[in-house]
Formats: sequence, structure tokens, C-alpha cells
Amino acid sequence: MAGDNMLKLGIPKGSLQDATIALFEKSGWKIRMHHRNYFPEINDPEITCSMCRAQEMSRYVESGTLDCGLTGKDWILENESDVVVVADLVYSKVSNRPARWVLAVAADSPYKRPEDLAGKKIATELCNFTKQYFSGAGIPVEVEFSWGATEAKVVEGLADAIVEVTETGTTIKAHGLRIISDLLSTNTQLIANKKAWEDPFKRRKIEILNMMLQGALRAEGLVGLKMNVPEEKMPAIMALLPSLTAPTVANLYNKDWLSVEIVVTEGIVRDLIPKLHDLGAEGIIEYALNKVI
Amino acid sequence: MAGDNMLKLGIPKGSLQDATIALFEKSGWKIRMHHRNYFPEINDPEITCSMCRAQEMSRYVESGTLDCGLTGKDWILENESDVVVVADLVYSKVSNRPARWVLAVAADSPYKRPEDLAGKKIATELCNFTKQYFSGAGIPVEVEFSWGATEAKVVEGLADAIVEVTETGTTIKAHGLRIISDLLSTNTQLIANKKAWEDPFKRRKIEILNMMLQGALRAEGLVGLKMNVPEEKMPAIMALLPSLTAPTVANLYNKDWLSVEIVVTEGIVRDLIPKLHDLGAEGIIEYALNKVI
Amino acid sequence: MAGDNMLKLGIPKGSLQDATIALFEKSGWKIRMHHRNYFPEINDPEITCSMCRAQEMSRYVESGTLDCGLTGKDWILENESDVVVVADLVYSKVSNRPARWVLAVAADSPYKRPEDLAGKKIATELCNFTKQYFSGAGIPVEVEFSWGATEAKVVEGLADAIVEVTETGTTIKAHGLRIISDLLSTNTQLIANKKAWEDPFKRRKIEILNMMLQGALRAEGLVGLKMNVPEEKMPAIMALLPSLTAPTVANLYNKDWLSVEIVVTEGIVRDLIPKLHDLGAEGIIEYALNKVI
Amino acid sequence: MAGDNMLKLGIPKGSLQDATIALFEKSGWKIRMHHRNYFPEINDPEITCSMCRAQEMSRYVESGTLDCGLTGKDWILENESDVVVVADLVYSKVSNRPARWVLAVAADSPYKRPEDLAGKKIATELCNFTKQYFSGAGIPVEVEFSWGATEAKVVEGLADAIVEVTETGTTIKAHGLRIISDLLSTNTQLIANKKAWEDPFKRRKIEILNMMLQGALRAEGLVGLKMNVPEEKMPAIMALLPSLTAPTVANLYNKDWLSVEIVVTEGIVRDLIPKLHDLGAEGIIEYALNKVI
Amino acid sequence: MAGDNMLKLGIPKGSLQDATIALFEKSGWKIRMHHRNYFPEINDPEITCSMCRAQEMSRYVESGTLDCGLTGKDWILENESDVVVVADLVYSKVSNRPARWVLAVAADSPYKRPEDLAGKKIATELCNFTKQYFSGAGIPVEVEFSWGATEAKVVEGLADAIVEVTETGTTIKAHGLRIISDLLSTNTQLIANKKAWEDPFKRRKIEILNMMLQGALRAEGLVGLKMNVPEEKMPAIMALLPSLTAPTVANLYNKDWLSVEIVVTEGIVRDLIPKLHDLGAEGIIEYALNKVI
Amino acid sequence: MAGDNMLKLGIPKGSLQDATIALFEKSGWKIRMHHRNYFPEINDPEITCSMCRAQEMSRYVESGTLDCGLTGKDWILENESDVVVVADLVYSKVSNRPARWVLAVAADSPYKRPEDLAGKKIATELCNFTKQYFSGAGIPVEVEFSWGATEAKVVEGLADAIVEVTETGTTIKAHGLRIISDLLSTNTQLIANKKAWEDPFKRRKIEILNMMLQGALRAEGLVGLKMNVPEEKMPAIMALLPSLTAPTVANLYNKDWLSVEIVVTEGIVRDLIPKLHDLGAEGIIEYALNKVI
Repeated sequence: MAGDNMLKLGIPKGSLQDATIALFEKSGWKIRMHHRNYFPEINDPEITCSMCRAQEMSRYVESGTLDCGLTGKDWILENESDVVVVADLVYSKVSNRPARWVLAVAADSPYKRPEDLAGKKIATELCNFTKQYFSGAGIPVEVEFSWGATEAKVVEGLADAIVEVTETGTTIKAHGLRIISDLLSTNTQLIANKKAWEDPFKRRKIEILNMMLQGALRAEGLVGLKMNVPEEKMPAIMALLPSLTAPTVANLYNKDWLSVEIVVTEGIVRDLIPKLHDLGAEGIIEYALNKVI
Repeated sequence: MAGDNMLKLGIPKGSLQDATIALFEKSGWKIRMHHRNYFPEINDPEITCSMCRAQEMSRYVESGTLDCGLTGKDWILENESDVVVVADLVYSKVSNRPARWVLAVAADSPYKRPEDLAGKKIATELCNFTKQYFSGAGIPVEVEFSWGATEAKVVEGLADAIVEVTETGTTIKAHGLRIISDLLSTNTQLIANKKAWEDPFKRRKIEILNMMLQGALRAEGLVGLKMNVPEEKMPAIMALLPSLTAPTVANLYNKDWLSVEIVVTEGIVRDLIPKLHDLGAEGIIEYALNKVI
Repeated sequence: MAGDNMLKLGIPKGSLQDATIALFEKSGWKIRMHHRNYFPEINDPEITCSMCRAQEMSRYVESGTLDCGLTGKDWILENESDVVVVADLVYSKVSNRPARWVLAVAADSPYKRPEDLAGKKIATELCNFTKQYFSGAGIPVEVEFSWGATEAKVVEGLADAIVEVTETGTTIKAHGLRIISDLLSTNTQLIANKKAWEDPFKRRKIEILNMMLQGALRAEGLVGLKMNVPEEKMPAIMALLPSLTAPTVANLYNKDWLSVEIVVTEGIVRDLIPKLHDLGAEGIIEYALNKVI
Repeated sequence: MAGDNMLKLGIPKGSLQDATIALFEKSGWKIRMHHRNYFPEINDPEITCSMCRAQEMSRYVESGTLDCGLTGKDWILENESDVVVVADLVYSKVSNRPARWVLAVAADSPYKRPEDLAGKKIATELCNFTKQYFSGAGIPVEVEFSWGATEAKVVEGLADAIVEVTETGTTIKAHGLRIISDLLSTNTQLIANKKAWEDPFKRRKIEILNMMLQGALRAEGLVGLKMNVPEEKMPAIMALLPSLTAPTVANLYNKDWLSVEIVVTEGIVRDLIPKLHDLGAEGIIEYALNKVI
Repeated sequence: MAGDNMLKLGIPKGSLQDATIALFEKSGWKIRMHHRNYFPEINDPEITCSMCRAQEMSRYVESGTLDCGLTGKDWILENESDVVVVADLVYSKVSNRPARWVLAVAADSPYKRPEDLAGKKIATELCNFTKQYFSGAGIPVEVEFSWGATEAKVVEGLADAIVEVTETGTTIKAHGLRIISDLLSTNTQLIANKKAWEDPFKRRKIEILNMMLQGALRAEGLVGLKMNVPEEKMPAIMALLPSLTAPTVANLYNKDWLSVEIVVTEGIVRDLIPKLHDLGAEGIIEYALNKVI
Repeated sequence: MAGDNMLKLGIPKGSLQDATIALFEKSGWKIRMHHRNYFPEINDPEITCSMCRAQEMSRYVESGTLDCGLTGKDWILENESDVVVVADLVYSKVSNRPARWVLAVAADSPYKRPEDLAGKKIATELCNFTKQYFSGAGIPVEVEFSWGATEAKVVEGLADAIVEVTETGTTIKAHGLRIISDLLSTNTQLIANKKAWEDPFKRRKIEILNMMLQGALRAEGLVGLKMNVPEEKMPAIMALLPSLTAPTVANLYNKDWLSVEIVVTEGIVRDLIPKLHDLGAEGIIEYALNKVI
């Protein structure tokens, strides 16, 4: 059966789409969108791609329409989908703060805690999750589905509180709101259909996908550093280097110098280089990495 | 004479322009377009650059107005130009399908093969080539030059068939057409004037250009891979590595491990890394390459 | 006191802003602009960032409102600010021509030298510097502050000459003007407040900033080159290599070949590679560098 | 109480927004959107404006959050809102075809009528209405809420049919679909809260709003026509003129000619003018109208 | 036969398209372009519209594929089409200079007159016309079809002269060229197929089209002027008014004043109003006109 | 002398430019900007146009480089220019609030009145005016020229207060500032050189310009209203009509009705029409006006 050797992969449409396609390219798979064509092309004969809204992805993975897909943890929970969560995919951004769904009220309102909202109206795109949260907490509220622009609803007098996603809270505050509780922290996840996960071919394929995606994500925060070091300074230099991986050392041609090469976190380079320089390292170069496994 | 030490190079205007300038930059030559200036600046005192439509390039190379240039094989044939084809320059894209000129008819028309079009009207931008194709096949047709938007001509009732360029056929199909024959597969070529090719200075210069352009193009499909390998696993790892070039091996400082570095096709990395990982390779990193000669 | 361990850094707004933020990112500091927030975020707890117009930067560094900042040499002179010039930061561009303030007149006017402008009206944004230049030369002129679009003033009949900044002179010529004198060559400089420069913490911090900024700028013009060389060809190859830094040499696994790695100026690669190739070097690869210290 | 002399008006966000604001401007009310302000400003001290999604408007009018508002008939039905429908507001467009919600299936599917979809899955944004339609017809189907890009769902294999809004059907066809039934014809309506409609101040205000909106809409399809007519041709001309309103007639200064002025449907002008011209009318001019009451 | 009561009208694609559709709208016909549909919709059951490149229009009108169409006089001549020229349609623009095809050479070349180009190469998009022009003048030249960017050809050394269209000559001069001769003045024309012109239904329809198009074009340069005049000033005012059409005069209610209304050229209003004002006219208003027949 | 019959008019560059050119077009003069040409074309042989920054306009009018020009009252005062202010030109906008220069401080600062700023630093683009204001009030302050983004200076800690232009104060508040005093209310003015104002030709020309500009500005807030009224309702209707100008009344053909036509303020139409309608007026139409003198 054809399906046995073919993995059906779901790519999220919309806000995650460009970042996802860029990550796959770094990982070794080129995905090409065609205008007016629903199935993006991928350069792997063992995979077929589909575009799918993040909100709906887990449904299609659960039903087996797709074998695996990328989507947010929030929407998996909202859909109560029974799927295998293979791994978290934490896209590196300037801010390392995760996206989170928060409960927010008018800044000048008297509400301080979720229980203060008993009997009130809450607008959100994440209805199901929100209902469960409040019923689990024994707080009776009216949860109303919002078609968007949710942040405006409280100020417009259309809801008493909202449950909305945010990273820094800036947009929430800009709408005159105050966050009173964090309900859910979310990030992208790679999920698989339960039956597909039992199929050896599909599972191996998904695991390779995951290894390469993780390798590409890890490389975003790391760089290669190479320098020439006088042999007698080697112990001091070695003591300074972070122990992430063993450095690669080679002899320079006709000289009592060594070549040292390491992989380090990009963030420490600006502190490390001045110290290496002070200890006598020369010809220090830094270069970018595509993947680190 | 000044011309003796000066190469006149033609850069194609239009759809190939940005890709060509980017390729030259990767190859070591910066070309700078000036608003309202016909001759782009190039940072090599032995070259003068001209912009030229791809359709007309081979004419000017044939006549000696230019010593060499880049253009499509299709337009060289259309112009029946007598030039030296120095090399193919296959720009790497997501799709590896070459551009091709196809014969297309209305999807719901009865035409199945070129000979079914005897006596019919065919619209195309590649008139000369198309006429020769049909007369060579002994099929009498009326070939009409199209000023553009050729795909629409059949549906508009203005032609019975078209000859048009396409990569995937998507646009053709989107216009309600059906491809019945592939007439010509095309790609970019570096061409030279016959007399310039006999001039030692110009030939050497063109060959260096070609070597660097090919080096930059080749690098697009290749990456560097570096890893640490336990000495006893070396034979198994070596057996796995593609024999493209010999790997560079060095000893790790105070350890029974080796550092192994190779250049491989980007496309196989996603298959190779999991196997290397299974065999015990550690600290695998992948990095990008500018040129591979 | 908090200020003792905190460096107040000024980033120039406007035309230099994007290039400056990109350079800091390459150097190891991520600066993030917030909509409607005056103080950009920087991922270093020992630095606070402020945005400042390049024209006003040196005033605030002189007064100690800022400890250090980046701005143009021209505006430091215009403001006659008493600050420490730590280093020049020469951003690499296609053109290596420095920006310069020139004295320009109508192309068809009789003026040939600055002294021909005695008694005339000169429009410029660099009023103070221009007044000093002419009074130093003993030439009486009327200098008038221009609110912008200065190049048009001569043709519009609103001034007899202008003092304006240019790189190639193209815009000057396009407005029908002729340059009769270069008054000042300018570039970006890192400047420090005199008292901050005496503070050991701040000075060390500024010096590290400078080392990393310089390392990132230097890397823009350099590339790494790696190749395999037969051992007997080594002397000839070595003779060819530029002596910038000593090459790193290692033995290839089970072969009489050496791996040679060097850092060279990007501009000579296109000449160097063909020669290395002729001498027997193989598997030549070129890769990009983030920093070179 | 302040509310007694204040009308709360809802303006639809999104696709209807610009057309609505333009219509109000023509009608005599200037509505000004403020960036980051939820309540648009309106130059009438007796009205407060709110922005509201068309999908949600009728809910807020029903509940009295708003006294009146503009929205689509479709969303009023979807919400089963108990409101007063004051008037239809038929915005004039090039096409006079009303927007309609249609049932569409894959062009190459076997489904011909709604009943052929028994047991099938239908995707739509108009869930409630669609469920009622099918249950009213006694056809058991599964109706699934679609988050958008509904037209693509059938080709993507995610639904058997869709219910979607269209004017000309072009987009439906472009997605490879075939319309098998029209379920609902819709247009913009001015609706009022039942209690507000009983309040004399609010009702008078809503009726004035409606009179002016209708006057502006009517003017879009009408023009003024003015011409000079010889007195003896007057009966023939009068017989030709449409009887919409009585023409205004005046005598020309010192001549046996009359000036005739009428208001006519723009669409008939191209037929009417040639006939008037044939009958001897001269100096025929046409001018635009802002309002016609 | 259906064709008997249906007029097939061609609308030019490209640079004339928007202006043409706007003119038809002013004239009483709304044309609506559909994305991915080749036949624009027109709100007249007796007309079918087709889009057609201006360059190809006259061919299709000549062959009867279209009954009539709008295109440039230049392309009708280029195609040597045997069609009926119904009328010139002179679109009013800021500049009243007609477009013209000119013969241009390098500004610093020795060529002064067409005959100086004997034996030279001329590039143009208007090949056929250019060949006839030179052969008619007995001047042997080589005429070469240009794919566009013709102005650049001379400076690029690809042609000795060009024949190109221009309004003000500005672009020609900006490319370093000098005009040595005007070959053809052109404007938009309404053309008809010869057989269609004999068909009474089609001819009447084309004539009505022409009357309304001319009426809308004429209105662009005219405005309505209305004022109140004391009866005794009437002779002086009348003497001042241009005699284009007789003014419409009516009595003001219970006053010895007259209301005077005229249609005048927009360009004279700024001179006329001050004079009317000086003579005692009051309440002078100016309003726009859609059509003047 | 040429100048005797030629008026040199200055048009402000920048934020006022488009509105000014549009106003001149409504007034009867078409001004056409040419790319790379300093002198815009105007369709009046007695006027030459120049573009000039609003900040510098009054300098050139004072010196006679220009005869007249449009600029802001604020910059005339800043430059202390000795010119004739011909008239105010109040462009109609949604908001009728005039632009004003205000003194603003940090919202949370203790400053309440200008005198609280004694000894403080004030940043502004209107240096000269600000210095005079404070010295006139006997308050010693340091005024510093701001190169732009002045609103940010207080929050950035670079100034204690600012003097900046605003209409509604929204931007000021959005930057966390509080207005403590209005220093100057400003609007566009038409100014003339003193000598040009004595020249009869130039003065007449400027007065005509002014009359037409005022006429076009006035028309923006007015509309024409025309209706049919039964003769016996005439007194009641007349009592209702605003007395701006006498209405134009004519008899309807063969009926006991009158045609009444008036010019009224656009803003009252929505109140007036319902009343006219209640009194029996029929066929009420409203139309736009280009000019009202």
C-alpha cells in the first residue's frame, strides 16, 4: 500500500507559515508554495505536504487525514485532540519569552483574581479550553467565542474579560487591559497520529524530521570559534573554554602554535573573545552554523 | 589597444537580472546598477559591463558588440546565433525542473499531437524556433507572434494553440490549457564571441569567470560537515561517507577521538546525519559554503 | 551607585540606525526597538541604550547625558564637542569612497575656487563648520541654514553655492552643480564622554564594544579559504599565500596530502583560486566569517 | 438620563467599513477613525459610534448594547436576533447581483442536489443557518465550522461541500467547485433595538438617519440633466421624459427657448440623450447629485 | 442571428486600460474586470467586451473578431489595417501635447536629418511604419524590432537611431538623445469593422457610443457657472459672457435680480469671475459637469 | 522688463505641498511637478512657480526672490520677515481645530506654568520665536535647536520641556507629555513682497489668486440644494431657509409649484432636509460646488 511508504505532513498556514518553511529549509527540506495549488511541493519523495490552519491541524492529525504536523500546544488542547506530542519546537526569537494565554480585564476594573469574574462574560478564541479552565476552578462564567480583535472587546463594553494570547503583554496593555492570570503557556509542537506512530516506517521518518529540525533550531543560538594559540598558553585557554563539546586541536605548520576550534553559545562570544585575546590567542574567527546535532 | 586588455561582458536584463548579479557577487565580482546609467559598474578594471535583454544577447555576442554574455539557450536558438557556448549555468532553485517551451491547446479541444494542428494558428513569443519545429516535422501551421499574455490567447479565441515557456505547467493549466508536447528544454548559458574566444587574454578571463561562477553555483548545493569520531569507529564512518573529496582528519587534544571534516551534497545531509549519529559521531555541525572549486 | 556599573550608550536615529543595529547584532548585542518606547532594549544588563539624532549625539555625550555613542565626525566638529574619539567605524559598502562635505556651485557659473565666493550666499545644514572654514580662510561669505533639499537651492536661485554631503558626487551633478572644493571627509566614530573614559568599568566596557564592533566590521571584507594540497607542492603554495595570518595546516587521513586553511581578503579570491588550482590544490572551499579579531 | 438624548450606533468593521463610512459622509455625518481608539468620532453630539464585526452586530443590537446598527441580513439570520429591521441599504455597485450564500461541491463530483449530500460533511462560516436549512429540508448532514479559506476545503479533501458567500460565483468556480443551490440572498440592513424603536427621540433620530442614507444611496444611481429646448418642441420632449419628478422649466433670456431640468436614472442617460438630441434639444449637460430625497 | 443584435467591443489592455474604463463609466457604461476572466462584464445586454492589446486591436477589428474597438492611430497604421476610423478620442490631460513618434539620435552624434541615417541601423517597436517611412523617402536603412527599453539602445551602442513615442520629449532627452524628426502624431481612435459599419444596428450602436464618449470628454474641460445679477447690469454682463451656448435666465423671487447660468471653459473661469464680480454679479457658484452634448 | 508682467509664486514643499497643489487646481491653475526639475509648470503665462520649504519661504519673499508665496504664520514669525500678509487660507479638514505651538512637559513633572521652567532646557524647531517668547516674559531658559522627533526629547531625558506643533494634542499625550501653555496658533497664509504689492500688475494678480483660492476653500463647506415647493407653502419654507444668499425661484411648467435653489452650509443639510420634507418640499436634490465667490 502506497501509504506505507509515504508520510502525510501538515504545515500550519498563517502566522507560523513562513517561519516553519524557513526552518524546514534549514533542516534539509525545501517546501515550495504554488499559487492556487493547495498542496505545497516538498523535495522528498516519501513525504506529501498539506497546508492547514494551526487551529485545525490537530483534528486532522487525530483523524489520520495527516500522519503528523506542526501546530501550537494551545490549539491541541483546545481541540482536545488525542495525538502523540513528539517534541516541542522552540523557535528562537529576540525575546525568549514564550507565548501565553492570559486572562485580562479593564485596567480600571475591580477584578483581581479569576474568581472575581463569577457570573461575568468572557470573550476568547480559545473557548473550549477557557470553559474547562473555569469549570475546573468551579467559577461559573459565560464564555463567548470572539471572531477576532478580542483585545478591544472589554473597552468596547462587549465583554467583562478576555482570554487572549500574548508574548510581552504590550498589546494587552496598549488596549487598556490588565492581566490578572496566566492560563496557559504555549509553543509550537510536532505531533503525530497515534496509528502512524506505531508504523515503523512513519515513526522512523518522523524521528529523523525531529532530529533535523532540532539540529537546525539549536544551531541558531550557537557559533563556531577558531583561533591560533601558542602551545604553552594551551592549559590556560582550555580552562577558560566552556565544556559544551571537546575542542578540536591541530598543529600549525612549522610553528609551536596550535589551532583550536569550538562551538559556543553566541551570547557568550562577546565576553569570551576579549579574555582569549588577553591570554594570547590570535587570528580569532567566528563563523555561523547551519545545524548542530 | 585598450580592447586587448578589456573584456566586454553582457548581463541579461529582466527576469534573470537579480539572480545574475547575486551570482557574480558570490563569485567575487560586485556589479552595481546606477539609476539612469546604462553601464553597470563592476569592480574589475579588466571588464566592462552592459545590460542587454536576454532575447537579444546572442545577437550582440555574435556581432562582437560584446565579447561574452549570459542568456538562455532558447533565445540563442531563436536567433540562430553563431557563438561559442562556454558552459551551462544551472541556477539552483527549489525545483530542479528545467524551464521548457511547450505546445499547449485548450483542455477541452480534440488536439492530441502536434500533427493535429495542421492548418491551425499558433501564437508564441518564440516564432522562429516554432516555425522551424513545425516545418521540420512537415506540419503546415500559421505561427503568429504574440505580444505577451500568450496563455490567454486560446481561451480568448485568438489562437488554436500556443508555444510558451513554463517550469511546472501550473500557469498553463490555470489558463484552461493542456500540454501536448515539449518542444525545447532551456537553461542559462555563458556564451562567447568566436573571435574573442581566440584572443588569449579574453579566453583566459572568460575561463576564470566561468571557474568562479561554477564554483559559486556548486557551493549552493553543498555544505561542510564536521564531527568528532571515536578512533575505533573510524572505518565504519569512512565507509559511510560519500567519496566526493577526501575527508580532512585531525586528532582531538588529549583524547582518542578524531575530528572529521567533509563537503557533501546538502540534499543527503538529512539522511547522512542520523546514520553518523547512530555510528557514534558526536558534535556534528553543518556550515554553509560560498564556493567549491 | 548604579551608574558605576552601567554604560549609557547612544544609538544614532535615522539613516545610520538600521546599519548600526545590524552591526551590533553581528558583534554580539541584540538591540530591539519598541514601538512607542524611547529606550531600545539591549541584551546586556550593563548597558542602557538611548536613541539620539546623529546631529545631536555629541552634545549629549559631552554633557554626560550619555557615556558613549556612535555618530558622524562631521557633526562632532559642527557641535565643537569636547569628547574622546575612541575609534573610526568604517562601514563597508560597495563603494569604499568616504562620505565628504563639498563646496558646490552651478556647473555653468564662473566660480572656480572658494575665494571666488567672497560676498556670496552659501546654504548648508553644517552652518557652524562652514562659517569657521570660510572665516579661517579669510573669505567673507553669508552662510544660511538650509532646512533640507539643499542641492536644489542653487538652481532655484536661492543660493550661490552649497556645502553638502556626498559619496560619489552623482546627486550633486544630477542637480546641475559642480564641486569646487572638498571641505571635510567624514565617517562614523565611536565617541566617549571624558569622565566616563576615566572610569575603569566604563572604559573597559567601551573597549570591549570597540573590539567586537571592529571584529565584525573586519570580517565583512574577509573570507575563510580551505584546500587540500599535496605535501610536495606545499612550498610553492605557501609562497603564493598572503602573509595576513599563519595558515592552519593538518594531515589528511592516510594520505600524503595536507589540509591548509587561511583567512584572506574577499577581493583577491578570484585571482588567488585559479593560481592555487594551477599549482595542484584540490577541494578548495570558501566560507563566510562573522568576526575576525 | 443621558441615554435618552443619545443614540448608540454600530458601524460594521471589516469589508463593509470603508463603504459605510463613505456613505455616512455623503449623508452628512463625518465619522473619523482614531488609531488605537475604539470609538470613532462622529460630528453629531446626539450620536455615539461603536465599531463591531458584522457577524456580531445583531447580537449587540438585540441586547441593547447598541440602539441601532448596520450589518448583513445573513448574520442577523445566523444569530436569530430579535430586532427591528428598519430598512434595506442596497449599496450600488457595478454588478447589481446581490451577495448570496450558495451550496457548492467539487465540479467533478456526482452531487446534483442538496439531498445528494445526505450523510456528508459540509464546511461553512454560517453554521447555524446551514444546519437549520438542512434539518428543515429533512436532510441529515454534518455541518462543520470553517475558520476561513472555505473554498479550498473541498479540493483539499477536508469537506464534501461548502456553504459560502459569493456575488458572481467566479471565485467558487476558480476553486474547481460547482454551485448546486442558492440558500440565501443577502444585503446590508439598518436594524434597531426593539426598545429603542419605542423611544420617540431615538426613533426620530433613526428615521432621519435612514432618510439621509437612502437619499445618498438613491443619488448614486441618479443624475441631473439640463437642456435648452425650442418652445414648439416642448410637447414631444415632455412625452419622452420619464415621469419620475416634474421637470423644472424656465424661459431663456430674450429667446423662444425653454430651459428644462430633470432628475433621471443614470443608466438611461445613454439612451435618452440621443433621442433628445434628435428632437432638437441643445446644450444638454449632465451633472452629479449628492442626495435625492 | 444573435450577432445581429450584439456589438463586439474591444477595450485596450495596458497603459490605456484604466483611462478607457473610466471614460466609459463617465459615458454611461460600467465595465468590470474579473480576475482570471478574459471577458470583462459590461452593463449593456447589447454589447460584449473583450480585452485586447492596443498593438493587436486593429487586426481583430479588421478580421471581424471584433466589431469595433479603441486603440492608437499609430498601431492602426503599423498593422495597415483596413478599418473605419469612426472618431478621434482626445483624452484631456494636464499637457495638451499629443503623443508622437519621433526619430532620435545620440545628442552628440553628427546626424541632423533623416537622410543622414542612410545605411544605419534603427531600432523601434513600430517596424512596419518606420520601414515605409524611410523607403518612401528613398533612404536605405536597416530597421530592427526592439523588445522594449528602446531609448537605451543608442547609448548602449546597439543602434544608430531609434523611432520611439513621446509626449514632451523629456524621457528622450534624459537618455542622452536628440530628436531630429517627428514621424507621426498619434491619439486614441474609435475604429469599426467595415462590415459591421454597414449593419444598421451596429452602426447606430457605435454612433451612440461615440456621441456619449465625446460628451464625456468634452465635459472634462467645461464647468457650469451660476450667478445672481441685478437686472440693470444684465447688458454689460451679457456682453462679457462667451457665446458658447445661450445663458439660462430666471427671475429671483420678489427681487429685481436675475439668475444667470452658463457653461464655460474651465480655463477662463479664473479670468471671468473677477470681471463678473466687478460688474456686480453676486453668489457666483461653479459646479462640475459629467457630460456636455 | 520681463518681471513687470510676471508673478514669481512660491509653493511650499513637504507636508503642505499636495494640499496646496490640489487647492490651486480647484481654483483654476494646474501645477505640474516634473521629476528632476526645480520649477513646476503652471498653466498661466503670467506666473512662474518655485518650490520652497515652508520654513524658508518668508525669507525669499522678503528678499524679493519671490513675489508671493504660501507658508505658515509660525515660520513667518520665526524668521521675523517683513512681508505683506495678504490673507489667511484656512484649509478645511475633518477637525476645525487650528494647528498650534504648545509648551509641553513630562506628564508627571511638577511644572505647571511657563515660569516654572526658569533655568531649564527647552528643545524646539522654532528657536527664535521661543527665545523671544520667554525673554519677553522675563523667564530665563536655555533654548536648544531640535533636529526633529522633538516629542521624544523629554522622556529621553534630553530636555526639560519642548515647544512643538500639534492639532489635537494626541501625539503630545501619546509621548507622555502634558501641555502647560499655548504659545502660538498658526495657519497657512498668502504673503507678498512689499515692493511687489506696490506694483499694480502684481497686486491685481495676487488679488485674483486670493479671490479664487478663497472661493475654492469656501465651496468645500457648502453645497447647492434644489427642491420643488407648492406655491402656498412658500412663505413657511422661506422662513426656514438660512439667509446666506437669496434663493433662486422659478415656476414649474404648467403647475402651481415653484423651483427653489439655495446654497447652504453642508453641515446643516441633515437637519434642514427633514424639515423641508415635513413642510411639503419634494424632489429635493443636493449637489457639490467647485467654487463660491
